[in-house]
Amino acid sequence: MSEALPAVLASPEARIVIIGPGLMGGSLAKALRTVAGFSGRIHAVIKSVDEHAAVQKATYTEKRPGQKSKRPKLVNACSAELGPAMDGADLVLVATPPQTIPEIFRALAEQLPSPTIVTEIASVKGDIAVLGKALFGHRYVGSHPLVGSEQQGFRAAKGTLFRGARCVLTPMDKGDDQTLAFLHRFWSALGCEVLEMSPEEHDARLAKTSHLPHLLAYAYMAFLGESDPAALTSLGGGGLRDFSRIAASDPALWREILQENRHYLHADLSRFRAVLDELDKALWDDNPSVLEDILVQGQAARAQFQFPPPLKT
Amino acid sequence: MSEALPAVLASPEARIVIIGPGLMGGSLAKALRTVAGFSGRIHAVIKSVDEHAAVQKATYTEKRPGQKSKRPKLVNACSAELGPAMDGADLVLVATPPQTIPEIFRALAEQLPSPTIVTEIASVKGDIAVLGKALFGHRYVGSHPLVGSEQQGFRAAKGTLFRGARCVLTPMDKGDDQTLAFLHRFWSALGCEVLEMSPEEHDARLAKTSHLPHLLAYAYMAFLGESDPAALTSLGGGGLRDFSRIAASDPALWREILQENRHYLHADLSRFRAVLDELDKALWDDNPSVLEDILVQGQAARAQFQFPPPLKT
Repeated sequence: MSEALPAVLASPEARIVIIGPGLMGGSLAKALRTVAGFSGRIHAVIKSVDEHAAVQKATYTEKRPGQKSKRPKLVNACSAELGPAMDGADLVLVATPPQTIPEIFRALAEQLPSPTIVTEIASVKGDIAVLGKALFGHRYVGSHPLVGSEQQGFRAAKGTLFRGARCVLTPMDKGDDQTLAFLHRFWSALGCEVLEMSPEEHDARLAKTSHLPHLLAYAYMAFLGESDPAALTSLGGGGLRDFSRIAASDPALWREILQENRHYLHADLSRFRAVLDELDKALWDDNPSVLEDILVQGQAARAQFQFPPPLKT
Repeated sequence: MSEALPAVLASPEARIVIIGPGLMGGSLAKALRTVAGFSGRIHAVIKSVDEHAAVQKATYTEKRPGQKSKRPKLVNACSAELGPAMDGADLVLVATPPQTIPEIFRALAEQLPSPTIVTEIASVKGDIAVLGKALFGHRYVGSHPLVGSEQQGFRAAKGTLFRGARCVLTPMDKGDDQTLAFLHRFWSALGCEVLEMSPEEHDARLAKTSHLPHLLAYAYMAFLGESDPAALTSLGGGGLRDFSRIAASDPALWREILQENRHYLHADLSRFRAVLDELDKALWDDNPSVLEDILVQGQAARAQFQFPPPLKT
């Protein structure tokens, strides 16, 4: 069950600005309408001319008991610049790639009405959190919904993307409590289970659970690409399909994420390689009990994780 | 569309022996009945007392136009030993773990009626193919349906497991053509797309497309298991779920497969580590263009693969 939106967003006068309505930002708009029942205004800020038309045309179905369903606009206004969007905004959601965020934050800081809350959904916090705090103080707390898809763009957006997913909020001190409570209700209303940790803990943990798997999946597929792929492409079963799915993700976005979090990743990679070396040695020494021990450890560690169910497609 | 079974299996007098009716062998029995319409006798050879009862009780629905559906036995007879199963067998399918196959092959060779065809479904051929050829000559060709599941046992068996999957057959010389044609029709009738290559090609290619991903997924999960898993288990999203799914597979089975194919795997692992080193260096040198190049190569290689659709659960 989703919770109710924060009180200030429950009014038809409420205003939310989504900067970058791609897969994630577009899904946020859809989830706001169809999961959280948001009836206020959504203003999208979007640079891409191609996406602009699709976002402007998009509608959603409003279900009211006893009435015919209507198809109002998903997004009430679109602009390429921040300026027109800021007037009376209650919440600004920055849903663009990590490396664009500092510039957007600086532009926002010049125009932001004083009570507006700001968050972003970057997969790595690092400098972004430091800058957000410096520019917006307690009006900023970072968000990271642990969802995504190898697909890209507004057309792939889904209102159900956040249902049953975890969302990590990254407060920095006690003064953030009010914004934290606001964003906690916001993400809960979209269907998320909310977790809280510092930006540093977030980056250290996500390096292990998300960034390293992406790095390994890309490296593995690059290895296959060097190994006579024509002889291999018909041999992909379900195991390879699932293992490598995240290597179909946007390389430019993931280059940014890996680069931003390289300090944690480099250390994790070195520990991962130690396990790999141990495994390779057991294989080469033909040492079945050491080999099986490592596999048993891997299987046991996986059994401790609770995963969301696969998205229905 | 599935093709028809080989003529000799189309008769109600036909006899198929399945040694090891677990996930794979059980799915074979179900697919024979429900996909290929096999109406002959299936004899299961099964050591496990626990599984015995489940296999003996299992029925399937026979649909005949205008008649009430009946629920006949999936398997007509079960025994712990080979002896009772061999009489009049047209085809013996060995569906047990790789390291049990040599002993089963030797026992089979003493009791096998002369026209019976033998195959096994091991994920690695190596010594198994050499022994099969030595014991059974042209009556043996290896099979490897590229399907599976992290689940185990007869209870997880599904008749649709082979639908749309690839099955690799591993003939060794021209004399194998008749058995090859027989098995080609057999696997096609279960819904597979059939590929042919030598046992050596099979092992070299599967090391890259299946065994290395399993090894990496286990090594990665073992790394997570060493890294304060309690702080991480709530952070599993869809990416981690899919990337690590194969690490939930049976460690004892995969220890055998990795061990059997260690020569190819060791060489591949060393090439994979070279890509990983390159990637780590680009990360550490903060070299975004080299980093992105590797990710782009990985993404491009994956786009060349054709994968089967996910199994409906």
